[in-house]
Amino acid sequence: MTVAGDAADARAGGTGFTHCHTVRVRYAETDAMGVVYYANYLTYFEVARVEYLRAAGIEYRLLEEAGTVAAVTSAHVDYRLPARFDDQLSLWTRCASIGKVRFRVEYEVWREADRALIVSGYTEHALLAHGLLRPARIPDWVRAGIEQFEASRRGTPETVVFAERSGGGGRG
Amino acid sequence: MTVAGDAADARAGGTGFTHCHTVRVRYAETDAMGVVYYANYLTYFEVARVEYLRAAGIEYRLLEEAGTVAAVTSAHVDYRLPARFDDQLSLWTRCASIGKVRFRVEYEVWREADRALIVSGYTEHALLAHGLLRPARIPDWVRAGIEQFEASRRGTPETVVFAERSGGGGRG
Amino acid sequence: MTVAGDAADARAGGTGFTHCHTVRVRYAETDAMGVVYYANYLTYFEVARVEYLRAAGIEYRLLEEAGTVAAVTSAHVDYRLPARFDDQLSLWTRCASIGKVRFRVEYEVWREADRALIVSGYTEHALLAHGLLRPARIPDWVRAGIEQFEASRRGTPETVVFAERSGGGGRG
Amino acid sequence: MTVAGDAADARAGGTGFTHCHTVRVRYAETDAMGVVYYANYLTYFEVARVEYLRAAGIEYRLLEEAGTVAAVTSAHVDYRLPARFDDQLSLWTRCASIGKVRFRVEYEVWREADRALIVSGYTEHALLAHGLLRPARIPDWVRAGIEQFEASRRGTPETVVFAERSGGGGRG
Repeated sequence: MTVAGDAADARAGGTGFTHCHTVRVRYAETDAMGVVYYANYLTYFEVARVEYLRAAGIEYRLLEEAGTVAAVTSAHVDYRLPARFDDQLSLWTRCASIGKVRFRVEYEVWREADRALIVSGYTEHALLAHGLLRPARIPDWVRAGIEQFEASRRGTPETVVFAERSGGGGRG
Repeated sequence: MTVAGDAADARAGGTGFTHCHTVRVRYAETDAMGVVYYANYLTYFEVARVEYLRAAGIEYRLLEEAGTVAAVTSAHVDYRLPARFDDQLSLWTRCASIGKVRFRVEYEVWREADRALIVSGYTEHALLAHGLLRPARIPDWVRAGIEQFEASRRGTPETVVFAERSGGGGRG
Repeated sequence: MTVAGDAADARAGGTGFTHCHTVRVRYAETDAMGVVYYANYLTYFEVARVEYLRAAGIEYRLLEEAGTVAAVTSAHVDYRLPARFDDQLSLWTRCASIGKVRFRVEYEVWREADRALIVSGYTEHALLAHGLLRPARIPDWVRAGIEQFEASRRGTPETVVFAERSGGGGRG
Repeated sequence: MTVAGDAADARAGGTGFTHCHTVRVRYAETDAMGVVYYANYLTYFEVARVEYLRAAGIEYRLLEEAGTVAAVTSAHVDYRLPARFDDQLSLWTRCASIGKVRFRVEYEVWREADRALIVSGYTEHALLAHGLLRPARIPDWVRAGIEQFEASRRGTPETVVFAERSGGGGRG
């Protein structure tokens, strides 16, 4: 495959993103306009985030059982094109930053059939002790898991993306 | 109003039912067929059930805070006509039976604009101690609340329904 | 009521906002954390927007039947406090700007019981000819309806909010 | 593998069912009781049905593009055990009967971790000409697709189920 080909491939599937998980649009997720209802992209972001964390060695369920929840402090979506019933969507994800108590996750949703960017967006999170409202310090194993995962997946975008698309290591 | 008129009115709005709560169809609840997605009627049933219980003096939230949950053991829906975005729907509800640990609630959903029956159905419930799987005995105050509510609302269908529609006592 | 009281009242319910609609949290809208799932605030925003437009004389259903849809181009939510099952929420809404093809709506969601701000956010929209991807010019009657509604509701925040809370003119 | 082992395996995963598709429970699908909200099983049934039809050579999207919709006429769910966030669920499906205009699909949802039956249920459907309320005759290619699929998958339950579980032919 030529470099130009790689670059086109990379652009089609989330350059700079480190994880990809595929979902298929359910009828339940569409609305009377015939497209995915706008709130459901936040559900896709949740699925992408859970699978991203799992790939980084962090089972979200275990985090909760240890008495911690990752509360959302803000969410943002930019809508580019509508997705429709039965579309296969690639949910590209990366952790853009991680501090003492907060982290930020970014997303791009691409339609696989025509490699079109459907939406992009981000969510910001604070770790909370379960049942309380005060932020808790992100445990070292969580921070280390995310940092190592990001480092291992980043490189030249072509390499990363090529590995994702052919190996499917990060796909669900 | 003539008896015939009363009877027609009663048929249009849930003869034999003892409580009515109105909802308006949200865009989120429609699907690509342009109608309310079939699973969402179970959500309407939940709203109807919570408001029915509130009218009978039973705040569902208090029930939960007392360590009890009303688990659903079965649910059934018969779909007659499709409802659409922005339709105002009357959710008619009654408690059809109540035993030691189980109770059954029945529903009819009518569109207000043309008095058309949209769906009918029922849910069956068992009271559980929160976090456990074994049924718990329905507390006396819950049973008494439901029985008194049903007795107070039942009568000739015309009377009940007329009171509902004009007085709105049971409406949320 | 004193001016100080008015000011407190205004702060509690969306100063500068021009419309209020109340919803009650459904069980369906909560998640395993015991709070409203984060995506569902976008559904509340939709309900608030539809009722805002209706109060401004614009039935969204008629807009659609005329072959136009108000596509969302971006959405943003800042989460302050969690809301729970059965909470009554005030959805405060205003149109922050309206151009030739785009408009922006802002929201605050307050819990009525303790007058706590739950979330704030906005959505941005472009009018599209139904089935097409190209923006359409906002019809004059839509722009006029929104501008007149905003002008009629704006004034000193205290006055507006007081009228809202006691008269309920804008409540659904 | 012994016959006894096969039988246990078959019982654990939907004896007599002809198709299996796996989903993982999303946080969005849970409720404040910490379990999957009861209406969401109808969404799982939809996902199961669409994948069943795809395996039988019937793309639901094509059916719709040909001007036909498979309207639900009734739905039923029996709830046995609660499922929780992140559970992997096997959605077992079969077409129980198919007439001139109606067909019935049956489902069992099993949790993979402990091979526990979570819910069972069915949906009944009538084919409608899109936008009309009158049933349409099921096209021959649809009936033939379903009948051939059922015939090819049915046999001794042990054989069918074993093939499903090891080969994953029917899994999404």
